[in-house]
Amino acid sequence: MPTISEKGSQMPASPIRKLVPYAEAAKKRGTHVIHLNIGQPDIKTPQVALDAVRNHAIEVLAYSMTEGSEIYREKIADYYAKNDISVNASDIIVTTGGSEALSFVMGTIMDGDDEIIIPEPFYANYNGFATAAGVKVVPIVSSIDSNFALPPISQFEQLIGPKTKAILICNPGNPTGYLYSKEEIQQLAKLVKKHNLFLIADEVYREFAYDGREHYSILQEPGLENHAVMVDSVSKRYSMCGARIGCLVSRNKEVIQTALKFAQARLSPPTFAQIASEAALDTPPSYFDAVISEYVERRNILVTELQKIEGVKVAVPQGAFYCVAELPISNSDDFAQWLLEKFEMDGATVMVAPAAGFYASEGLGKNQIRIAYVLEKEELVKAVRILGTALKEYTN
Amino acid sequence: MPTISEKGSQMPASPIRKLVPYAEAAKKRGTHVIHLNIGQPDIKTPQVALDAVRNHAIEVLAYSMTEGSEIYREKIADYYAKNDISVNASDIIVTTGGSEALSFVMGTIMDGDDEIIIPEPFYANYNGFATAAGVKVVPIVSSIDSNFALPPISQFEQLIGPKTKAILICNPGNPTGYLYSKEEIQQLAKLVKKHNLFLIADEVYREFAYDGREHYSILQEPGLENHAVMVDSVSKRYSMCGARIGCLVSRNKEVIQTALKFAQARLSPPTFAQIASEAALDTPPSYFDAVISEYVERRNILVTELQKIEGVKVAVPQGAFYCVAELPISNSDDFAQWLLEKFEMDGATVMVAPAAGFYASEGLGKNQIRIAYVLEKEELVKAVRILGTALKEYTN
Ligand SMILES: Cc1ncc(COP(=O)(O)O)c(C=O)c1O
Ligand SMILES: Cc1ncc(COP(=O)(O)O)c(C=O)c1O
Repeated sequence: MPTISEKGSQMPASPIRKLVPYAEAAKKRGTHVIHLNIGQPDIKTPQVALDAVRNHAIEVLAYSMTEGSEIYREKIADYYAKNDISVNASDIIVTTGGSEALSFVMGTIMDGDDEIIIPEPFYANYNGFATAAGVKVVPIVSSIDSNFALPPISQFEQLIGPKTKAILICNPGNPTGYLYSKEEIQQLAKLVKKHNLFLIADEVYREFAYDGREHYSILQEPGLENHAVMVDSVSKRYSMCGARIGCLVSRNKEVIQTALKFAQARLSPPTFAQIASEAALDTPPSYFDAVISEYVERRNILVTELQKIEGVKVAVPQGAFYCVAELPISNSDDFAQWLLEKFEMDGATVMVAPAAGFYASEGLGKNQIRIAYVLEKEELVKAVRILGTALKEYTN
Repeated sequence: MPTISEKGSQMPASPIRKLVPYAEAAKKRGTHVIHLNIGQPDIKTPQVALDAVRNHAIEVLAYSMTEGSEIYREKIADYYAKNDISVNASDIIVTTGGSEALSFVMGTIMDGDDEIIIPEPFYANYNGFATAAGVKVVPIVSSIDSNFALPPISQFEQLIGPKTKAILICNPGNPTGYLYSKEEIQQLAKLVKKHNLFLIADEVYREFAYDGREHYSILQEPGLENHAVMVDSVSKRYSMCGARIGCLVSRNKEVIQTALKFAQARLSPPTFAQIASEAALDTPPSYFDAVISEYVERRNILVTELQKIEGVKVAVPQGAFYCVAELPISNSDDFAQWLLEKFEMDGATVMVAPAAGFYASEGLGKNQIRIAYVLEKEELVKAVRILGTALKEYTN
């Protein structure tokens, strides 16, 4: 029997996937499982986007342009202009989700064994894209005690070596909810210029900035034209994860031309999804106002409820819709499984994402979990109460 | 300025892309450019697929399952059963086009520097996926004089070494139009079993088999369970290239489990496109009958017209909708450019795909072009007449 690749055997499985059979078994037993583990918003997709697809007049569903349709890219550039980011349509490649943009950028700037520095905890799939590209992730720990702020630049400098090609940040962060300040972005800008690195920012949660704070994009930072590569997505912004549309944005022509060759190999991004995404850009601002205030209320409730539980530490998120909590336990993988296998309160239990999967450093995050607040408030309160009771029982 | 990767600089650009500016300039001059260069069918997408999307009742456009929705995979398995291929839904991963299936399979079974043997000329993007995966393509020449039949097995054996992991065939072939016989598939089956290799078959044109010949899938061959990996797509079958739905099919559990990890990293295939693709499976057989007889008529006309031109050699295609022709010239890149830049007949010219881009061996295919017969018959006749006249002028 022929064998699979080493790379394939090293590909990380989704950290939640191991729990799925236990969640299914719980549901079969009749237990109501509240999902705190998924980043799939419950918010309705803008009607204008859904209608655009419903009203399509396509007769031959043809390939679109490799880089995405001209009109759509023009409209994306307009969207960025409104967000104080000045880019042209030719600086944009439309991708199949932010996911594809991430793998294009890795292939474009890194060869096998090259290194990319990423503050951890980070979006777990960065590991997958790096492994697929044969690239090495060099993590730099950020701490729950500082809300997962940017680690000191001196620590980055210690990690930079001849193989280092880029620094990747997620802003605001999944799973941290941390929103980098303008000053932090400027520190990173200085660093990548000094060491001639790329700075990649995953800004798929860019609209989700709370408490009056403004998102500062790496594309707003002057002098970073050749260094900055931004990854974006419609998935969370418009609650249209199933569309599979994102984009790669850079003013570095060589990066765009090279990424385009990766894009050409896969022909084009999905056509119906581009129709929906283009229409989504006409979503009225009131939609976002409502969505943002909904998320802020949820976050407030979540944090308040979590802080009531003894021994729980929370990093207060200022963006996105995730929150990392430290629990008075030693292994959140076991705890998450126990919640599904052994625990129930009033016929319900919760499914959480163990945080170890968001760290590249072996052993870190074992007492942490990630909670996504993409549930209605009442359900969220109920979920945290279940968590509190469960913790008491588990730690006894 | 930070530099792009070696891999990125080695990524092949689309062989047609160089010609695009010349085609655009020709159009600007008012010349009618007939496109013989693209594999985008003009055939209408089945109404049932388009309607399914038009009637969608989605409120939250959510991620689908990573491996594609259960129902859709069940229906795909039914489709294969009707085609004498017995597989389960769990042997199938729905992908974003056949393209993504190709890159998943390369990552799943090959590491950097591993080798894959591919009969050339082959679908140009195999080069792109291989380069992206850091994998080496080892070409084996098939000849226009035998209609691009399978090269002798002894030649394959000479190329197999310790790094060889797989043989990849395209059946029926793009650009060759060649349909492998059952005997040829059986020879390959014996070979991969003997040398413990994977056999990958790109069967995206499986429905397009002409002249009463039947397509024989590698999944029909007994004893190949652990070796066979099949790539499929709705793009050409239902003329829905813009959907971006394909699949990877294998009875080798380790291959499926590993490919699934690559799939998990990118979350899910597009939702609207899955709706369309699932509905497309209800396309009445009469649709295919009409499509096939249309392609056969086009092929007949194309071949007849090409054979009228002095010095032109044609491989008669028995499948797909491409045809490779050898011309009495020495460099089809130059000729293709000249057609767009310098030539015109009754206000029109043609754009062809130079065949060198379909070969991995340097220097091969330079006197060949690929013609896609995805145009109406009249336009096709006109196009070949233009080609004939142009050749006379060019060779004088
Ligand atoms: C930080 C981050 N980046 C990228 C993605 C990829 O999303 P998509 O491919 O749907 O755009 C996600 C999805 O959860 C994410 O959380
Ligand atoms: C032989 C072959 N394989 C795969 C593909 C990829 O097609 P898609 O990604 O649209 O399924 C094509 C497209 O032209 C092709 O010709």
